Amino acid sequence: MSAPSVAPFRPLLSDIKDAAGKISGSVLRTPTLPATQLSDILGASIYVKYDNMQVTNAFKERGALNKLLSLSDEERARGVIAMSAGNHAQAVALHATRLGIPSIIVMPQFTPFVKVAATKGFGAKVILEGETVAEAGDAAEKLAEEQGLTFVHPYDDPYILSGQGTIALEMLEDVPDLDCLVVPIGGGGLISGISIAAKAIKPDIEIIGVETELYPTMYNVFYGKELACGGASLAEGIAVKRAGKLTSAIVKDLVSDIVLVTEHQIEQAINAYATHLKTMAEGAGAAGLAAMIAERDRFAGKKVGLVLCGGNIDPRLLSSIIVRQLGRKQQIVGLRIIIPDRPGILGELSTIIGDLGGNILEVDHHRTFLNVPVKGASIDITIETRDAGHAQEIITAIEANGHKVEHLNSAS
Amino acid sequence: MSAPSVAPFRPLLSDIKDAAGKISGSVLRTPTLPATQLSDILGASIYVKYDNMQVTNAFKERGALNKLLSLSDEERARGVIAMSAGNHAQAVALHATRLGIPSIIVMPQFTPFVKVAATKGFGAKVILEGETVAEAGDAAEKLAEEQGLTFVHPYDDPYILSGQGTIALEMLEDVPDLDCLVVPIGGGGLISGISIAAKAIKPDIEIIGVETELYPTMYNVFYGKELACGGASLAEGIAVKRAGKLTSAIVKDLVSDIVLVTEHQIEQAINAYATHLKTMAEGAGAAGLAAMIAERDRFAGKKVGLVLCGGNIDPRLLSSIIVRQLGRKQQIVGLRIIIPDRPGILGELSTIIGDLGGNILEVDHHRTFLNVPVKGASIDITIETRDAGHAQEIITAIEANGHKVEHLNSAS
Repeated sequence: MSAPSVAPFRPLLSDIKDAAGKISGSVLRTPTLPATQLSDILGASIYVKYDNMQVTNAFKERGALNKLLSLSDEERARGVIAMSAGNHAQAVALHATRLGIPSIIVMPQFTPFVKVAATKGFGAKVILEGETVAEAGDAAEKLAEEQGLTFVHPYDDPYILSGQGTIALEMLEDVPDLDCLVVPIGGGGLISGISIAAKAIKPDIEIIGVETELYPTMYNVFYGKELACGGASLAEGIAVKRAGKLTSAIVKDLVSDIVLVTEHQIEQAINAYATHLKTMAEGAGAAGLAAMIAERDRFAGKKVGLVLCGGNIDPRLLSSIIVRQLGRKQQIVGLRIIIPDRPGILGELSTIIGDLGGNILEVDHHRTFLNVPVKGASIDITIETRDAGHAQEIITAIEANGHKVEHLNSAS
Repeated sequence: MSAPSVAPFRPLLSDIKDAAGKISGSVLRTPTLPATQLSDILGASIYVKYDNMQVTNAFKERGALNKLLSLSDEERARGVIAMSAGNHAQAVALHATRLGIPSIIVMPQFTPFVKVAATKGFGAKVILEGETVAEAGDAAEKLAEEQGLTFVHPYDDPYILSGQGTIALEMLEDVPDLDCLVVPIGGGGLISGISIAAKAIKPDIEIIGVETELYPTMYNVFYGKELACGGASLAEGIAVKRAGKLTSAIVKDLVSDIVLVTEHQIEQAINAYATHLKTMAEGAGAAGLAAMIAERDRFAGKKVGLVLCGGNIDPRLLSSIIVRQLGRKQQIVGLRIIIPDRPGILGELSTIIGDLGGNILEVDHHRTFLNVPVKGASIDITIETRDAGHAQEIITAIEANGHKVEHLNSAS
């Protein structure tokens, strides 16, 4: 995308307070609550800002609404356009419709059905164009120019930054003595707004940015590196290849460090939010917690504010993350057992497992695989166990009965 | 369980305010937030009290702590005992340990591993005894007497009621003009406390109780019926066979009606919380929303407060509810296709599906089932589609290519 159409002034605390006043009542004042169990596990005092409780389940509404409210009557009448495959799309659609402003959202052609439907549901006209986000962005810019629409940039715009910064006002109002804030970075809009507000209110607060190691975009700018960006990330919301101009300058001034997290750490964080806080974090939303998992010592003993900025995780993805995690903790164990292909064996195995208190979830027979002896068969049994020790106890008992057991998820 | 050891006085608003003061700072002041998307869907103005955000992810801490704080120094030194396979266990364990009071929790023998571990994790001694909740309760009562421990009843105790009632104080502080509160009923502790507080503050507020139709325990008391109780419910927390004495009297006086919900409605409500509010509700926690789904017209246009009283749902159960729901909306479709057993067919089918924008999730070949022609095979293909219309489009195209298609989840 090309440069934003507004003069890229750098917002001050007063702009952010102004934004807070304007969006109040139309954007939720979300809670910041202590995460006691996670604090115990990670050895820090963790507070979570639940911005996944917004109507569109993400923080983007703050900036989008503040931007829409900055438009003149004439600009409102002409309408707005935005490019996004994600939360920005729904935020612009919802608040434009609420304000009676016509909106067009350009999304890349292969955007998931659910996101297209949700955006249409909020009243926007959706145009699917371009194979990549960059191509969709170009198409949106072109349409904006042709039809005289205001382009609502997802991050590199002072009104967007000011809106996102209201999160910091609320967090420091609820927990004034936070030592640091850990904030996900995509284009940098969220962390820029938060940094300006938080540093102005509490100059000694530390702001730590987080990116997935697959997209170290702002990290490259911050440290003058040229690490490669690309790949499929769980954290789509921060899988961004181009950092904003305005946001880069602010991040360089106000942020202390940027932590890169692995996909595995993001997965662990999503699961921890689900398990301990009963809340759903999308990959980008869980990035702050992933950074704490990645660099535990750095945060030890500190009062840390995490911004759970979005909850729009694909239901099937969440579902498989939860089940995989049970597998890792050996509370779900898959065993492949080579057995003679004669009646009664399944009964024998089930009895051994049941007697030891294992709960059989699934059974799958294979007779045709080449690595099974001609007169034999292999059977996959999925069992719910107490823990790794209990799983081992069951394996030992089956082996003691003369069967060869392969533990299918022992490595993960 | 036999009668509680305290005189069963009926708490007043002042007792509940007193409890609020005592537990403040040790039990979370949870948020009550508007549920905009759900309100649009159900045609009411819905506010959710997120008591699943407590440390133990359930409201039980309120009553348990208030009870523990009512004990004399001598009683505290001797210790407490409780019987519970669920949230009450963790609540008593956590707060007893925090206060330095020794605690024993008796759980039925087949209590899930995770719950036993969590309760031990909060510092209680766990005794597994009895095949049923009733037997475990008897064992706990016996131990209490033998060892001089204070028995902490899960609901039929005025201190417990007063603690639970603090939820209503908070809800009406946050949203003073609620027309009605929809409250799950197990033994009746939650609804009794809430009714006393809410009716005293706002006499015209309507209190609606909810039970699963499998356990119409309080419904029977309320309407003088004798409907059967039993069966495996998703809402374990309210699958209770005996209503409290104290609570029954209060419910009869202050509650307007009790709605019975089906297991399917509870499942829908759990899924709606996950999908629209990105939060996890256990079956009992979702019962209030299930009642709104069951009796939509009754709540139309009203300002309704739902008590999301617990989030401790088994992760595997949640996971399967989410995936089943996608199946119901035909966004995941299973097709069984009878095909000639020759090379190239899978390629042909995949191309048809891919060209129409369907996303193949799983493929499963069967050659040995008896209902398949000897020279044929059946193949199960699981596909992600946009909606039912899109699924039908794909089925029609496969049939047009000469294959017989069975739609595996069309009935649900």
